[in-house]
Amino acid sequence: MRAKKVDINRWLDRSKRNGERAKRLALLSQLSQVLNSTLDPKEIRRRAMEAATRLMKAEVGSLLLVNEEKHRLYFEVALGERGENLKMISLNLGEGIAGWVAQYGKPLVVNSPEKDCRFFKGVDERTEFKTRNIICVPVRVKEKIIGVLEAINKKGKGKFNQEDLSLLISLADQVAIALDNSRLYQELEEMFFQTAKSLADAIEKRDPHTGGHTQRVTRYSQAISKYLPLTHLEKKWVKITSVLHDIGKIGIEDYILKKPEPLSPKEFEIIKRHSKMGAEIIEHIRPLREIIPGVKYHHEQVDGKGYPDGLKGEDIPILAKIVAVADTYDAMTTDRPYRKAMDKKIAIDELKRCSGTQLDGEVVKAFIHAYQNGEI
Amino acid sequence: MRAKKVDINRWLDRSKRNGERAKRLALLSQLSQVLNSTLDPKEIRRRAMEAATRLMKAEVGSLLLVNEEKHRLYFEVALGERGENLKMISLNLGEGIAGWVAQYGKPLVVNSPEKDCRFFKGVDERTEFKTRNIICVPVRVKEKIIGVLEAINKKGKGKFNQEDLSLLISLADQVAIALDNSRLYQELEEMFFQTAKSLADAIEKRDPHTGGHTQRVTRYSQAISKYLPLTHLEKKWVKITSVLHDIGKIGIEDYILKKPEPLSPKEFEIIKRHSKMGAEIIEHIRPLREIIPGVKYHHEQVDGKGYPDGLKGEDIPILAKIVAVADTYDAMTTDRPYRKAMDKKIAIDELKRCSGTQLDGEVVKAFIHAYQNGEI
Repeated sequence: MRAKKVDINRWLDRSKRNGERAKRLALLSQLSQVLNSTLDPKEIRRRAMEAATRLMKAEVGSLLLVNEEKHRLYFEVALGERGENLKMISLNLGEGIAGWVAQYGKPLVVNSPEKDCRFFKGVDERTEFKTRNIICVPVRVKEKIIGVLEAINKKGKGKFNQEDLSLLISLADQVAIALDNSRLYQELEEMFFQTAKSLADAIEKRDPHTGGHTQRVTRYSQAISKYLPLTHLEKKWVKITSVLHDIGKIGIEDYILKKPEPLSPKEFEIIKRHSKMGAEIIEHIRPLREIIPGVKYHHEQVDGKGYPDGLKGEDIPILAKIVAVADTYDAMTTDRPYRKAMDKKIAIDELKRCSGTQLDGEVVKAFIHAYQNGEI
Repeated sequence: MRAKKVDINRWLDRSKRNGERAKRLALLSQLSQVLNSTLDPKEIRRRAMEAATRLMKAEVGSLLLVNEEKHRLYFEVALGERGENLKMISLNLGEGIAGWVAQYGKPLVVNSPEKDCRFFKGVDERTEFKTRNIICVPVRVKEKIIGVLEAINKKGKGKFNQEDLSLLISLADQVAIALDNSRLYQELEEMFFQTAKSLADAIEKRDPHTGGHTQRVTRYSQAISKYLPLTHLEKKWVKITSVLHDIGKIGIEDYILKKPEPLSPKEFEIIKRHSKMGAEIIEHIRPLREIIPGVKYHHEQVDGKGYPDGLKGEDIPILAKIVAVADTYDAMTTDRPYRKAMDKKIAIDELKRCSGTQLDGEVVKAFIHAYQNGEI
């Protein structure tokens, strides 16, 4: 009977362990879904560290990323009570538990950090945090270590064990995949913006009067949109609209574009076609249909005296109103062949004066807000 | 003692179940890593269905996607012995188990399909497959059902149970996330290509002699690259290079570009600057640095008589050699103000004649290959 009893206890124990393991694996699966359901790198990093904390039942979790140029590890994000203090700290590769893991690419459980010569007391000292135990694994993208994921202080009186280690390794693999997908997405987005920007610049260069105009209008528009109630996506459209707002000038002939003297009324009518022509080009780019109104109407005025359609007030789309303010300010504050650039302050007064007639009042307010905060 | 015995058996049983469950959850975690480590939608679909088959220990797994316009479900991919036959079949929404799941968005286990009125015998009949049991769950992206994931015939004599269902639901959630990320990536890529293409078209339109030139050169270059040993990524660079190869013409003034008479030697020297000017524009687009040589050298000749640098043979990058052949063929087969378009066959003979002197022999061979297969 004695043998039997031992068996029972062993079975009970194993059953409990397996049940516990299944629960934690289900949690891992759920956390990895959360991790992968965004392509925003900052959000992925936050979720990664939150997931490590939950999955490890730890007091604090953190993600450190390798900065290759500086050969250092930076606390990207850190949660938990003392997380904020961690953000200021970075480690050399090889320094501390995290530095060791990043350098050798091996996972590590340290349940008595004070006895481990790799443990770096500096972090605890600076954060007034007492590390009782620590579990740390490498985050690897295509054989390259891009960082480490760690959890500190198992809640209760427990220690980190092999089971924890195997779960955290799985989580780190998911984190690596999510970060890599987001990197690919960011790179493609960067390629899109840079290409649109460079082609717009090249097109703009045909007009000798407007060096750098597109870039400045883009900067001003982005500053304005920070002070308007726009979504993240709408802000992206603002950026793209301002990059491409003058694209229609490609259709205006040299003899008008490059004319040093003031234009004749007839020539001015031709120049005015550029906003509509720009919209026609954008119409061929289906994924950019959102910005067609912005490009087409960036010379409309709220009093209806603009072009091409003489739209009034609320009929003018917000994207167009934003570009109009940025565009007007840039025209006033840069030299033209027939007049000097206006002083910034006088230009601001001019914007205020035109607010509600030529320009939208709310957008002018947002512009002034950005200007006062030194963003323009 | 009797009570004790029952307890032991129950514990043994639960322990076994928990152990089994933990194993399958670990497999789910592994499969979801595999699923998320690509952004290629076709590959995700293949992996999804493979994962369903393995996780469910089934004979066959398949993924059906909703075609919204046609209100039908299509077998996107199917593995297992009889998988190939399934690819030809589609279902109406509401038709069969899969159609029911897609319509109502509820998961379903059917262990006696012959007794279930929702079961659609048509598929079995057409595939000569005997469905013993089936498990099917919706694939949902942001509350919208985009398809269903199913597994058919549990291996051995087993049936699908609640445990299977909960695992398959988790897998389907991962599939949805992976497909959604890949969709976002594809959309962005499409936005990039369409924008580059439209701006290149707009720039090209200044030159009245070359309507549609860029689009044709892009089509020809892509056809050529199918017959050369290039990687998937290199083929992408070929596409981008050909879209942007003449971008430098933006820097050439109207009076030369629009001149109807043949150009003077001096004017021709100015026109020749466009390839170098194009490269200079691309230099500002860091993510496109791979295509700089292709744009810069698309007028080089293997005998060293081309421009801008007079590079010879192997010194000319492959991207430039491909665009050169496509460019030359298009120049010959379109009307110019001073001559009519050449017949296709005569142009091909001309390419052959220039092979090894002006044009690269291997690239010309690839072009002819594509031409013979009706792709040019």
